Amino acid sequence: MAQPGVTLVLGGARSGKSRFAEAMAERADRPLYLATGRAWDGEMASRIDEHRDRRGPRWTTVEEPLDLAGTLPKLAAPDAVVLVDCLTLWVTNLMMEQRDIAAETRGLVQCLGGLAGPVVFVSNEVGLGIVPDNAMARAFRDHAGRLHQEVAAVAGAVHFMVAGIPMTVKSTC
Amino acid sequence: MAQPGVTLVLGGARSGKSRFAEAMAERADRPLYLATGRAWDGEMASRIDEHRDRRGPRWTTVEEPLDLAGTLPKLAAPDAVVLVDCLTLWVTNLMMEQRDIAAETRGLVQCLGGLAGPVVFVSNEVGLGIVPDNAMARAFRDHAGRLHQEVAAVAGAVHFMVAGIPMTVKSTC
Amino acid sequence: MAQPGVTLVLGGARSGKSRFAEAMAERADRPLYLATGRAWDGEMASRIDEHRDRRGPRWTTVEEPLDLAGTLPKLAAPDAVVLVDCLTLWVTNLMMEQRDIAAETRGLVQCLGGLAGPVVFVSNEVGLGIVPDNAMARAFRDHAGRLHQEVAAVAGAVHFMVAGIPMTVKSTC
Repeated sequence: MAQPGVTLVLGGARSGKSRFAEAMAERADRPLYLATGRAWDGEMASRIDEHRDRRGPRWTTVEEPLDLAGTLPKLAAPDAVVLVDCLTLWVTNLMMEQRDIAAETRGLVQCLGGLAGPVVFVSNEVGLGIVPDNAMARAFRDHAGRLHQEVAAVAGAVHFMVAGIPMTVKSTC
Repeated sequence: MAQPGVTLVLGGARSGKSRFAEAMAERADRPLYLATGRAWDGEMASRIDEHRDRRGPRWTTVEEPLDLAGTLPKLAAPDAVVLVDCLTLWVTNLMMEQRDIAAETRGLVQCLGGLAGPVVFVSNEVGLGIVPDNAMARAFRDHAGRLHQEVAAVAGAVHFMVAGIPMTVKSTC
Repeated sequence: MAQPGVTLVLGGARSGKSRFAEAMAERADRPLYLATGRAWDGEMASRIDEHRDRRGPRWTTVEEPLDLAGTLPKLAAPDAVVLVDCLTLWVTNLMMEQRDIAAETRGLVQCLGGLAGPVVFVSNEVGLGIVPDNAMARAFRDHAGRLHQEVAAVAGAVHFMVAGIPMTVKSTC
């Protein structure tokens, strides 16, 4: 069953996903940023810093690389919007920890039915290029694609970003 | 001229293309599965098995890696829907056999004008990533892209899958 | 502020971007082709020749690999449509020359506010595949993605090509 409070924002690299999702969250009294990313290297660290600077002081930031199903119910509230940035990094973290990703996906989707407030997921669409040479990359895009389908199936709204502009793929409004 | 009975379902890896196309075909009395894939390796074999298990016993499966223009007229019928899964594997097979792909594409498109029943093509969009390093991959995505344009031009409906949800790009309904 | 005379046509490899943009430009008395591409190798040279043959004798072709902000104001006119093909090659050229791409992007966007006639930009969406291994390719898709967002923000119309068919992402008509 579609959850009106759940939104999925999908898009490619530098397609304006985060900016669009942030604007949605900033309409709430309390925008909460749930960061799944870990600063593995300098490039990643500077990208995280850039995002944080852009968001500004109204935001509360929580870092949780793995346990989304445990964290989201604690953060969600009627006066807040929780922005999860992003699902693809979550999948990466789960793969690094050799978790059962199908089970983790089910756990996440189940928790979405009982949240006390809205949540916006940002994720990278990575499946529209040539089949990657290495098996890890193929597994990653399979996991990400399945996760996107599962979340989209219960989401109230799904947007696909093109050059900073949302194409609305699904809407319950 | 657009053929109302021809549908093209495009999408990335794990975007829900096959599932969506299967649901379309299952509305027919006789869903027919025209498989173009060959089990080159274990990964491919298990993907083929997974798809077959999902379809279930109502389906008839025909395997034809190369001669779509010869096979489709024999299978198409008013009480059936033929699901061709997928065009990108067909292009791969044609390249392996060093066929003239422009000529094969023309042959396929020509046969679509005279079919006795509906057909649904599934294919992978592979042209939205970085230009691949190797020439074979670049040739492949050029062939696939041209084929998609040709089929879309005569199709009655074209859908682009995003996270399991169809965005309707073209519709004659 | 959106400029009604500015159009962005985005799409993957062999998605019909150029053909669609050419059809737009050919409605003008004077279609002008502003080529940013350089024939680095035989594959590129033959692609350029193929495009030129398709356009035919009504077209005037101007080659400018770098200075779009200086060239567009000279070419734009009420009875012409300038087709810029393509922005991704422009970004490639700027990277080769080690230019400041953020500054060049700003310069291009600024010049769009004062043009005397319509312009159509063609560009490749390259950000929807797996994250590339090499840093140069990642930088390229970041630059291209940011540029697309900037141009789309001021464009009157943005189209995303799927199998030769435009999905209209933004329209001021």
